[in-house]
Amino acid sequence: MKNFTYVNSTKIIFGKDTESLIGEEIKSFGGKKVLFHYGGGSIKKTGLYDRIIKSLAENQIDYVELGGVQPNPRLSLVRTGIELCKLHDIDFILAVGGGSVIDSAKAIGIGAVYEGDVWDFFTGNATIESTLPVGVVLTIPAAGSEASTGTVITNEDGWYKWSVNSVLIRPKFAILNPELTYTLPDYQTVCGASDMIAHVFERYFTNESGVDFTDELCEATIRSIMRCVKMVLKDPTNYDARANLMWEGTLAHNGILGTGRIEDWASHKIEHELSAIYDIAHGAGLAIIFPHWMEYVYKHDIYRFARFAHRIFNVDVDFFNLEATVLEGIKRLKNFYKEIGLPTKLKDVNIGSEHFEEMAKKATINGPIGSFVKLNTEDVFNIFKLALE
Amino acid sequence: MKNFTYVNSTKIIFGKDTESLIGEEIKSFGGKKVLFHYGGGSIKKTGLYDRIIKSLAENQIDYVELGGVQPNPRLSLVRTGIELCKLHDIDFILAVGGGSVIDSAKAIGIGAVYEGDVWDFFTGNATIESTLPVGVVLTIPAAGSEASTGTVITNEDGWYKWSVNSVLIRPKFAILNPELTYTLPDYQTVCGASDMIAHVFERYFTNESGVDFTDELCEATIRSIMRCVKMVLKDPTNYDARANLMWEGTLAHNGILGTGRIEDWASHKIEHELSAIYDIAHGAGLAIIFPHWMEYVYKHDIYRFARFAHRIFNVDVDFFNLEATVLEGIKRLKNFYKEIGLPTKLKDVNIGSEHFEEMAKKATINGPIGSFVKLNTEDVFNIFKLALE
Repeated sequence: MKNFTYVNSTKIIFGKDTESLIGEEIKSFGGKKVLFHYGGGSIKKTGLYDRIIKSLAENQIDYVELGGVQPNPRLSLVRTGIELCKLHDIDFILAVGGGSVIDSAKAIGIGAVYEGDVWDFFTGNATIESTLPVGVVLTIPAAGSEASTGTVITNEDGWYKWSVNSVLIRPKFAILNPELTYTLPDYQTVCGASDMIAHVFERYFTNESGVDFTDELCEATIRSIMRCVKMVLKDPTNYDARANLMWEGTLAHNGILGTGRIEDWASHKIEHELSAIYDIAHGAGLAIIFPHWMEYVYKHDIYRFARFAHRIFNVDVDFFNLEATVLEGIKRLKNFYKEIGLPTKLKDVNIGSEHFEEMAKKATINGPIGSFVKLNTEDVFNIFKLALE
Repeated sequence: MKNFTYVNSTKIIFGKDTESLIGEEIKSFGGKKVLFHYGGGSIKKTGLYDRIIKSLAENQIDYVELGGVQPNPRLSLVRTGIELCKLHDIDFILAVGGGSVIDSAKAIGIGAVYEGDVWDFFTGNATIESTLPVGVVLTIPAAGSEASTGTVITNEDGWYKWSVNSVLIRPKFAILNPELTYTLPDYQTVCGASDMIAHVFERYFTNESGVDFTDELCEATIRSIMRCVKMVLKDPTNYDARANLMWEGTLAHNGILGTGRIEDWASHKIEHELSAIYDIAHGAGLAIIFPHWMEYVYKHDIYRFARFAHRIFNVDVDFFNLEATVLEGIKRLKNFYKEIGLPTKLKDVNIGSEHFEEMAKKATINGPIGSFVKLNTEDVFNIFKLALE
């Protein structure tokens, strides 16, 4: 077990009707003039927009609006947000939406208090030293960005999808009302679940030994996500199923499950190349990449993968053929993804091999990726090939 | 699943040699003149005392010492600490030890900034509004006080062992070096494990439905504590076993496992009566009380207890006789306690029935206790009787 430092300063406000507290919370964190940041406008249809405006007004909080965040949030809109913040002396950013909106808000936050170009933080040419505070009303449980230290932004100039991390950019608070997720289309719900599971996988597959406790917590989380997402598909307004899934999305990525472990993150980097070029949902890309990453690397630690198969999918352990145990586990993972309506092959989303070389090169532009198994350009190319059909 | 608000502001610094950071951390939280609070002096034998003094000196931090904290920490010493704080203009309290030292430090912290008598907070005659900041170097993983909102103090005048809770009294930071626990006597190690398990039980046995995720997390935590404490008994300097156990102690009581749930806490209140009068170790008292509390209440929700038996102890579920499944689970819990050297009956610690009535009355002095099943004075008396022999 590795040394670590852990604190998560994001205040979680969880449950029914909690979005009515938004104005009060912003005020308690000193916000007086807010950039109200959101996505495609579904919050207007559901009435959430109006409830938020009302709460801001009741608390004498001024705001400037910036909607239009797309999935795989774009650098150009981040730059627009930064200009608005500087122009209007914004002192707080409110993100209402899912991971894309929150990531966009975090990037605006660091850019608004920086003289240079915000992309510097993503290329490593600048280090985050401060930010405008960010608060969240979550509407899509998935990315865990509401209590995480990261943001991932897509630069349209070259379609680079890159991330930056700092404890400074954790949101001040996150309001999680499971009822706000009742109207999510099934496909967004399952892409979210896939993203959560992937966040746990990136921590679960580790070379660090002696981490029994977080192994157990990771397995517990994955099992429960898998159960809850199926319940939600059957009954989209099942409050408890929605609530468990939402809280799982936060804990899968708030850092607790990685304490004392070396994390991997190769599959995320590989998937980012896919969604940067093809603009597919991140969760769908992960459902395609992860089983094939597993097929490519499982021999590195067959015991961990056998445990995975047994603990997550209840595969009967064949002690004389652990490999069969592992392969059965990976097969059941693919079946789980299919059952909830996710693709498991590139062919399923009409992606061919035409950009494999380019994507493999871009994924490894700063050297080999991953830490469970270090993958070079050729390895990434091979994983794309495995994932083809 | 219930609405909740959650944030844990305690910074955890975990791993080998981390105690050398103590001066630096205190300074970062503004501490200049410290009350250095500890227990019976084992920290002098191990050299920890010297390392701390050195780190304080290197960071130009002045200190006043107050050792002598006993298990079931006493109000009289808390009062002495408060006087010292006021006399020397102390601005930070450093607790080096286990739960008793930390609880004592927390009580001193709230008393030092209050005009009246500190016991007012425990009787409900005053509300915590501020505190001196507290930092921790943990040497006994057990109580979880290093990242919790509570403190439990024993008033020798009537032997009342009472608690008070507030998010304001969470320690600012907690340094957890598993190596510092290598020299713990076996009995303290297992009492600590028993306390951790009890903290999870108090959250696990709930009437709140639809809490699959935290059910899974609770079960994962209990299983891992049980495995790790056995590994520690076999090999007290097994770093990973000590490390997992230490981190489990914190997470068992930092609030995460209770999110969205209604917690119980009857067994803790019943045990407090035992350890207040007989001064037995809290963890030993819990090992005696919990199985008998279970025997007394399991019919209230036989399904939850069957799940407990199956998930924690791998009891084969007898669907035609769930009661047998439950009783087998409770039997295995007792066997686990015995196996690691804990008492499971009052007779084992030479306690007879002479104070049953008095203890049952004191436990219910403010009305019925517990929320899974509400227990009145007679119920508590009956549980003591079940626990006798």
